[in-house]
Amino acid sequence: MSEDPRYPTPLRTISADLAAERSSTPFTPLHITHFLDGSPTATSQRRRLESWIIRDPTGIFSNENNAYMHRTERHTRALAKFVRLIELCRSAGIGSKQTTSDGQSSIQHLEGEIVSSPEFYTLVSSLADDPLPPSLHWVMFVPNILTLCDAEQQAEWLPLCRDWKMIGCYAQTELGHGSNIRALETTATFLKESEGAKKGGEWMINSPTLTSWKFWPGTLGKTANHAMVIARLIDGSGVDRGIHNFLVPLRSVEDHSLLPGVETGDIGPKIGYNNMDNGYAKFEGVRIPRRNMAMRFATVNEEGVYEKVAGGADEAASKVAYITMMQVRAYIIHSSSEALAMACTIAIRYSAVRRQGYNADSPDKSEFQVLDYRQQQYRLLPLLAASYAIFFTGKHVLARLKHIENQLVSGASTITKVVVADIHATTSALKSYATTLTADGIEDCRKACGGHGFLVCSGLVELSNTYLQSCTVEGDNQMLPQQVINVLLKLVEKVQSGDDDALKDYEQTDMEYLIEPLIKLVENAADNGTPTKSLFCFSSPGQFADTSMLLQAFQYRTACLLLDVAMQLQNSMETCTPQQAWNDCLLAMSRAARAHACFLLLRDFANGLKDEQQKGSASCLGKEETAVLSQCLCLLALYWLDQHLSDFLQIQCLSATLIPHMRSALLEAMTSLRPSAVGLCDARDFSDFRLKSALGRYDGDVYPAIIKAAKNDPLNQQSSNGGVGLGYDESLKNLIAGGVGEYKGVSGTMSRL
Amino acid sequence: MSEDPRYPTPLRTISADLAAERSSTPFTPLHITHFLDGSPTATSQRRRLESWIIRDPTGIFSNENNAYMHRTERHTRALAKFVRLIELCRSAGIGSKQTTSDGQSSIQHLEGEIVSSPEFYTLVSSLADDPLPPSLHWVMFVPNILTLCDAEQQAEWLPLCRDWKMIGCYAQTELGHGSNIRALETTATFLKESEGAKKGGEWMINSPTLTSWKFWPGTLGKTANHAMVIARLIDGSGVDRGIHNFLVPLRSVEDHSLLPGVETGDIGPKIGYNNMDNGYAKFEGVRIPRRNMAMRFATVNEEGVYEKVAGGADEAASKVAYITMMQVRAYIIHSSSEALAMACTIAIRYSAVRRQGYNADSPDKSEFQVLDYRQQQYRLLPLLAASYAIFFTGKHVLARLKHIENQLVSGASTITKVVVADIHATTSALKSYATTLTADGIEDCRKACGGHGFLVCSGLVELSNTYLQSCTVEGDNQMLPQQVINVLLKLVEKVQSGDDDALKDYEQTDMEYLIEPLIKLVENAADNGTPTKSLFCFSSPGQFADTSMLLQAFQYRTACLLLDVAMQLQNSMETCTPQQAWNDCLLAMSRAARAHACFLLLRDFANGLKDEQQKGSASCLGKEETAVLSQCLCLLALYWLDQHLSDFLQIQCLSATLIPHMRSALLEAMTSLRPSAVGLCDARDFSDFRLKSALGRYDGDVYPAIIKAAKNDPLNQQSSNGGVGLGYDESLKNLIAGGVGEYKGVSGTMSRL
Repeated sequence: MSEDPRYPTPLRTISADLAAERSSTPFTPLHITHFLDGSPTATSQRRRLESWIIRDPTGIFSNENNAYMHRTERHTRALAKFVRLIELCRSAGIGSKQTTSDGQSSIQHLEGEIVSSPEFYTLVSSLADDPLPPSLHWVMFVPNILTLCDAEQQAEWLPLCRDWKMIGCYAQTELGHGSNIRALETTATFLKESEGAKKGGEWMINSPTLTSWKFWPGTLGKTANHAMVIARLIDGSGVDRGIHNFLVPLRSVEDHSLLPGVETGDIGPKIGYNNMDNGYAKFEGVRIPRRNMAMRFATVNEEGVYEKVAGGADEAASKVAYITMMQVRAYIIHSSSEALAMACTIAIRYSAVRRQGYNADSPDKSEFQVLDYRQQQYRLLPLLAASYAIFFTGKHVLARLKHIENQLVSGASTITKVVVADIHATTSALKSYATTLTADGIEDCRKACGGHGFLVCSGLVELSNTYLQSCTVEGDNQMLPQQVINVLLKLVEKVQSGDDDALKDYEQTDMEYLIEPLIKLVENAADNGTPTKSLFCFSSPGQFADTSMLLQAFQYRTACLLLDVAMQLQNSMETCTPQQAWNDCLLAMSRAARAHACFLLLRDFANGLKDEQQKGSASCLGKEETAVLSQCLCLLALYWLDQHLSDFLQIQCLSATLIPHMRSALLEAMTSLRPSAVGLCDARDFSDFRLKSALGRYDGDVYPAIIKAAKNDPLNQQSSNGGVGLGYDESLKNLIAGGVGEYKGVSGTMSRL
Repeated sequence: MSEDPRYPTPLRTISADLAAERSSTPFTPLHITHFLDGSPTATSQRRRLESWIIRDPTGIFSNENNAYMHRTERHTRALAKFVRLIELCRSAGIGSKQTTSDGQSSIQHLEGEIVSSPEFYTLVSSLADDPLPPSLHWVMFVPNILTLCDAEQQAEWLPLCRDWKMIGCYAQTELGHGSNIRALETTATFLKESEGAKKGGEWMINSPTLTSWKFWPGTLGKTANHAMVIARLIDGSGVDRGIHNFLVPLRSVEDHSLLPGVETGDIGPKIGYNNMDNGYAKFEGVRIPRRNMAMRFATVNEEGVYEKVAGGADEAASKVAYITMMQVRAYIIHSSSEALAMACTIAIRYSAVRRQGYNADSPDKSEFQVLDYRQQQYRLLPLLAASYAIFFTGKHVLARLKHIENQLVSGASTITKVVVADIHATTSALKSYATTLTADGIEDCRKACGGHGFLVCSGLVELSNTYLQSCTVEGDNQMLPQQVINVLLKLVEKVQSGDDDALKDYEQTDMEYLIEPLIKLVENAADNGTPTKSLFCFSSPGQFADTSMLLQAFQYRTACLLLDVAMQLQNSMETCTPQQAWNDCLLAMSRAARAHACFLLLRDFANGLKDEQQKGSASCLGKEETAVLSQCLCLLALYWLDQHLSDFLQIQCLSATLIPHMRSALLEAMTSLRPSAVGLCDARDFSDFRLKSALGRYDGDVYPAIIKAAKNDPLNQQSSNGGVGLGYDESLKNLIAGGVGEYKGVSGTMSRL
């Protein structure tokens, strides 16, 4: 491995602690690596691709000095990295065409060659492991053209996107308006030729107030020359038709200078993700052609007449557009697994190497491995398990979205409104819960590294700061639970009204698990304000080691909490406004939405493992690997049971006397997983190049790495004679020499000021 | 207020939202300000002092560009700020001499004039609101000389400290050793004259391994010319006498160059606190005089003979030394209140101004104030209440430490071992809980500001990153619970053994509240592994609004959880090693220690308010102010009851059926406090200069402030023609022009790499 370019700092001898961990790992990490990648071939392709980037003779992809650079340098270097990446890809002529299983491009793949790029781009840029400013071009801008623009528009714009003549961003959020899209203020007003517009009519884009300035869009500040601007459409008769999308040129394609009436800039330093030029934009009477409005689902003609595009195919298409947007959330969920696993890898390897506290039992009086402390295990092992759970769920949700999309394209009628609502609730619940868990988890991994976790060279600081945005983008995690509950409450209504036909629509959805419990609970409902009681109850200590029992508890937990929300809302409607009733229920909604997310994560994990077991030898996973992943599943369920214990006690699904047994089972689950901890990290196959961490190195040789990073700091590099620091000559010298006034005792008082 | 220099950006008209909040505030914020400062005079002194710093004609104290500076610039400018501060203080001849109530300097105030400086320094530097590199000189180095060095040593070194000839730091932590001080590896080996040492003997300081390099000490990297080094003392006979303190010169007082055998440097960028030159140091055969060992409690003579200093007075003195160290923790607790209150001020003012979501009930269809959402209230109001609770507790703990110190100095016998252990448990529990709560709370305030909370100009990013270290310094928050429980378990033992005499020692301690419940619980203890049941139980909904009932619940919670720990330990000793038994109990210990901290915080809050009420008109607080602070207390108790509900359900102090009533009481408590939220922030009297926040401005005019901050970013400032970004010429230009290779379709495959 010492010649593997993915390990840039020459690996030294593997630390004795890590060597011991690895030799006692009860499974083969590489089998899990293959499973995560999809196949052994995919693993070696990924490794080759990463090596190829690292070996690039320009050396530009090195991340060694990230920690010491000012954000201006990071941004400009990231631009250079990006252009070099394009150059590399073009010279190698690589890419991969994505087609559906029947060999046809799917509806969104009108330009398959271009659409393939985002996926390839995502892979390549994730391997380069440094955010690249034009990211939003592929992630938001091109998908928007593909879903909302008509065929003619796509034919004109997509080749320009592919050739980077057009570098785009997606400009929705405004300075004063985030989650509530209906409140956006930017206007696009139609002007007919008779009103002085160019032939065919024009739109005039305006930012009427300071709060309407676009603010936050990635790539907008300095990089993009076009923006897909979300604005209120004012038609030829002056009627406000609500928000629509408009392709607005921002900068000259010739010299990148701002076009008349456009002002953009970077929004300034953020907690993380500072390579990116998130931007602001102000529009003052900017004129664009009529056909720069995205016209797939609505049109405006030369006379300024607004019309919705009708027809069955387009209804499906509008669902597809919706599904496409949800895929962004699904990608966020899926990528959370990787971010959390990186943090766990760093913290767990370090905890295996770091020693603290005397071991009175040991013959050589050595200190304990930090990983052997129960608190450290309680902090790290469930997070490690969660990183796998999120992988399974992310994979499942992406597959389901793809399936729904394909069904819609093929015109199958199975995709009902309930199915679309269901996947909306699922992605909302999982996005909110998985990203909160991941953001908090990364930070906890950082804290679990003690003092050294504060060092930027730990790799955890930038990992955390870059990830944090995921809690807020694509639906703030605090807002999403309402959307989840909104959908789930409709199921409760159907159950309450005994509408069995309607319930059939809920079969095969992610809400299916709630039907049976809800029917039983509604039958028994007291509706006197006391919490709904679970119909499943732990009755013996042994049940805590049984995953199917644990899943039943989580199933009833969602059902009970959800029914309580429904009843609370129904009851308070009688005494206050719907708005007030809803507001007073928000905290209960969060709990119920969290319960839904937990159940889905555990269920997908369990089902995913079952699928692999059924594949037999066709699975990348052998018996030992499914066994260790099953231990992860069990530990995670027990951990959540303990963490959210009040939910389970409230629904009386376990009694107080069983709590110590549940906690013993948790300790046992940690003991079982302990020997596999390092192996489960190794299985993710994050190279040292990607981890960028002195603490998480594969070889465990952390201390020389920390000192090396320290010595590279400009404060040390730029010292003058004999290590004297910057600022000594200007400041300290005079003070020490006694030249900065004289100490006059303590007779003075505040009144002298 | 518009001419107040503490509000550097000219205040615009107060936003209508904040004006409305202020006009409906049901109490006088300024009264609380006076109370927090100590008196109306103290308030005006503080304001004058702050204005004086801000108005300094050099303008060096401006923090306007902090966000855009590289850490090297921040460090060197902070050095310059520090020297200017000294110059200002000297020229004004200000300071304040601290004496005890009887007019005598206390034992630690051997050099009252110097000791007074840290407190003044703390105040001044907190008002300058930018960490200053030599901070550790006053915070750790000088106190160490005062507590551990003998009179002769103090007489020699303290004047040098005062005159900044000697700039010191405290070098304890090593690269491989943090919390476990016994494992430190640095050695100080005694050399007699006969062994080639200078007259009187010398110490040779060595870093025998890489893991023994000093690492982390603040001020060590570049600023300090002396360090108090903690090292293993090897006496003249070669016997290891454990860790002792040694004053080691690091740099020449003439030209600041490193002395022979010493290597120091900065440890590199950290998550925050980057003005500071936290440092590393390696010692290679560094010789220092024999008398550079701190000799108050132990001596080594010229022959290398080690001797402990004995005697009653010195036993008290050693307790004083211990108390002094605990005062550092108490300061950390106390300063947490301010940090958390700053974050709350920013988030709450912004939440009052930020609007989101349509209000169907409102006539003008305006959006809601974000602060009216229940989730936002649940996030922010308890934190606001906690910031006040921590203030009361911090004040109480500091006063108690001072009282104990004074008693020790005056030779009173009331300061028993139990008292010292008690204050140790209290500071450990509170430091761990209050700093965790504050760190998480600041981050939650940041997230509660949605997207704009990610901006560095929110003020929350640096506030959070600077604060985070508090969770790890002076005892890692994960380690401290063991120390708490260690002390508390001794009380349980006394109760279990029925030793009534011994229990008398626990009266008047912070553990007193546990005696009675423990006696009753031990009498009833089942000891069959089921959780201990509380003897207090909520029986009616009305009790949740009664603070004394809530306090009883918290009282029994600690007692039950503590007794469970004791019994679990006792039971598992039978089947496993003490080490294993202890390890398996760590999670339960955390819960019990948290319970202890919560009770103390609530009790001190309640007692503090009672004291003010008893003072009558002598108190700064009027009826309205104590009323609103009582609402804070009640809300906080209910919030913790909800947050830690599983503890209370486990001890059966409330039944599941009462949960909805508890939550209704919580909603009502939030409703009651809602009109006071902005007023309680204003009462902290943080100027705009100190908050450094576009979102938390006093005038609420946030959006222009955000744009102004954005435009100041170097990425915008350094743009070339027409706002074209840096990096365009080098990178994008060629790409857009088509000069970076050609798109060759998707025929390529991975195999081309």
